[in-house]
Amino acid sequence: MSRMLSIEPLTKEAFAPFGSVIETDRASMRLINGGNTERFHALARVDVVGAGAIINIFRGQPRAFPYALAMMERHPLGSQSFSPVDDRPWLVVVAADEGGRPGRPRVFLASGRQGVNYGRNVWHHPLMALGAASDFIVVDREAPGDNLEEFFYDEAFVIPDPL
Amino acid sequence: MSRMLSIEPLTKEAFAPFGSVIETDRASMRLINGGNTERFHALARVDVVGAGAIINIFRGQPRAFPYALAMMERHPLGSQSFSPVDDRPWLVVVAADEGGRPGRPRVFLASGRQGVNYGRNVWHHPLMALGAASDFIVVDREAPGDNLEEFFYDEAFVIPDPL
Repeated sequence: MSRMLSIEPLTKEAFAPFGSVIETDRASMRLINGGNTERFHALARVDVVGAGAIINIFRGQPRAFPYALAMMERHPLGSQSFSPVDDRPWLVVVAADEGGRPGRPRVFLASGRQGVNYGRNVWHHPLMALGAASDFIVVDREAPGDNLEEFFYDEAFVIPDPL
Repeated sequence: MSRMLSIEPLTKEAFAPFGSVIETDRASMRLINGGNTERFHALARVDVVGAGAIINIFRGQPRAFPYALAMMERHPLGSQSFSPVDDRPWLVVVAADEGGRPGRPRVFLASGRQGVNYGRNVWHHPLMALGAASDFIVVDREAPGDNLEEFFYDEAFVIPDPL
């Protein structure tokens, strides 16, 4: 099987097995604050076990392509969300679990207005910013140190330049 | 006492009685992801009682000035964070509690890179976007409907044009 990965557009439906897409979809909208504000409600749920949740900012340096993807990680004790604040596209890389290790990665191209919430224990690649250093609002579990599992593939996959 | 409010710059120190400022301050930074990513860690804590936390997007229409501030609200059961994604300044309006009602409001001008987390039960004004419709990542408690207390001042305060 080819080690070259293809890139899919990020949609709620395609991403559903891995978590939630955080974007302004009409179905979730309710007017609040006397009509001043549209609330896109409950786009994702924070799912943390045995500790509280925190809000962080991650600043990711842009990745170079073609990218050799050699590892994946997951957080057994908590979901982790990424919401871009620089309106710049980025890559979301996830994999189904196959007996305790990640299967073939799937690569989604997110717009600069799309965030995701990785479900608890879902394999994913660390942050992949594109083009320039980019900031993300991140909601995850306190004490990330005891909540990390990494896996290294025998042979790297390759992500082509998405832009 | 004048009903005209003055506008202060938003700083961590000045805002401390009301909650946290969510911004990339060096003191909270740690390198992760093999040096690719700066993690500005635990800028705010999610504090919800009796229900889970959710991630939403709020889209606020810009306010007109001078603004007659007639009400405040608070959420007894949960913190609520706002992080701008359009890099546009906005106003943060809070008040100390005085025997179950909000005191004189304080008005902070936040940059487009500064978010806040209102502490649980802290009086604040609903979202005040400036200049154009603006989106915010919002982390708060599920079931917001049973978590809202409003107060209406006998006489409105006035916020001058901040820009």
